Amino acid sequence: MSITTVGLDADDTLWHNESIFRLTQSRFVELLAAYVDPDPLRERLAEVERRNLQLYGYGVKGFTLSMIETAMEAAGGADITPVIREILAAGREMLGHPVEPLPGVEETVGALADRYRLVLITKGDLLHQENKLAASGLGGHFAAVEIVSEKDTATYRRVFARYGTGAAQAAMVGNSVRSDILPALDAGAYAAHIPYRLTWAHEHAEPPVDHPRFAELAAFADLPGWLESVERRAA
Amino acid sequence: MSITTVGLDADDTLWHNESIFRLTQSRFVELLAAYVDPDPLRERLAEVERRNLQLYGYGVKGFTLSMIETAMEAAGGADITPVIREILAAGREMLGHPVEPLPGVEETVGALADRYRLVLITKGDLLHQENKLAASGLGGHFAAVEIVSEKDTATYRRVFARYGTGAAQAAMVGNSVRSDILPALDAGAYAAHIPYRLTWAHEHAEPPVDHPRFAELAAFADLPGWLESVERRAA
Repeated sequence: MSITTVGLDADDTLWHNESIFRLTQSRFVELLAAYVDPDPLRERLAEVERRNLQLYGYGVKGFTLSMIETAMEAAGGADITPVIREILAAGREMLGHPVEPLPGVEETVGALADRYRLVLITKGDLLHQENKLAASGLGGHFAAVEIVSEKDTATYRRVFARYGTGAAQAAMVGNSVRSDILPALDAGAYAAHIPYRLTWAHEHAEPPVDHPRFAELAAFADLPGWLESVERRAA
Repeated sequence: MSITTVGLDADDTLWHNESIFRLTQSRFVELLAAYVDPDPLRERLAEVERRNLQLYGYGVKGFTLSMIETAMEAAGGADITPVIREILAAGREMLGHPVEPLPGVEETVGALADRYRLVLITKGDLLHQENKLAASGLGGHFAAVEIVSEKDTATYRRVFARYGTGAAQAAMVGNSVRSDILPALDAGAYAAHIPYRLTWAHEHAEPPVDHPRFAELAAFADLPGWLESVERRAA
């Protein structure tokens, strides 16, 4: 069984994302410094985000709404109209933020596209993810783009069946053990974890270090070598 | 050439949507009645929405953010923290609003699914559209669901090629001349317009009454009859 299809996560796998959320969060904490201390405010925001996930889904628009909601709770009736103006502006800046590909991504994605069918598989706001892919200049390398509301086992089965030759001949690559690795392995695919220096608390999970179809890679540029080793073993 | 595939728009074609936006807008206008008159406020909101479309895309989350932005501008520095709390709540209510299928939809979609490959093609927030489809109970009738950031000619070409047998053997059905009819005809498909009693100003366009592959239908239940007549003429 050879590998025909490679699924690539986008945020924090191809380009920076969590670092931009963290910067905005720091700005948010500063804006409300007069009302509440940084640590409880960060915790409160995480809680509001988690509670809103089932209604808002993933992405910057929901994050902006959650920041506004948290700010109102934290300020307890004080006039924070100017703070809300700043939060709206911060959200818009995130949506218009330049896309910075991670080291080695541009060259490696090009090399992988010569050999495998590449599918981008990402959560988040539909238009924002499309805009980021366009801004990255990487769009032409992908056979398909799937922006999904949740990454679970059924998602990977469906995507690899539709755009590839099934999960057994596919590999998924990403920075989130919870979203990119565990459900892809469960669907029957290979999976490579490339950690990003920051992980959103919601995405945290332990890597399945002993799984025979799993690998942890230090850098995106290590991908072609890992895929070749998988194919050699499978041959 | 027979019809193999039918694309169905969702909002205001399968279930009520614009009426819910209008109700929220009325509530928004009331909330700000102390600061600004209804008509200029409605115009201002439409303008802010239009300006934000390229950043936020379609859907309730972007609409909520645009309402907050418009409220801040309209209040000119006054403390509108309580108003913003109400706007956030209104947005959440829209996302959790029960799905009300339009008359004739449930029976007709079931009958169409026996004969054609049905594809749901809709704009809006990814998770919200998925949730509405699930709540409608219609999900099982669809061979595929495409939630897209924009409905243009390329969208219909791609979707009808991927899930059907090409646009020439497909028909698109929806309430928006601008998004459902004109680009689908341009892609080479048949198109049926089923007007909803309200149209979002952004979606307004004149129906192409003389186009040979176009029909205007009074009700969703007229769809099977129209599709049969198309097939008879093409036979």
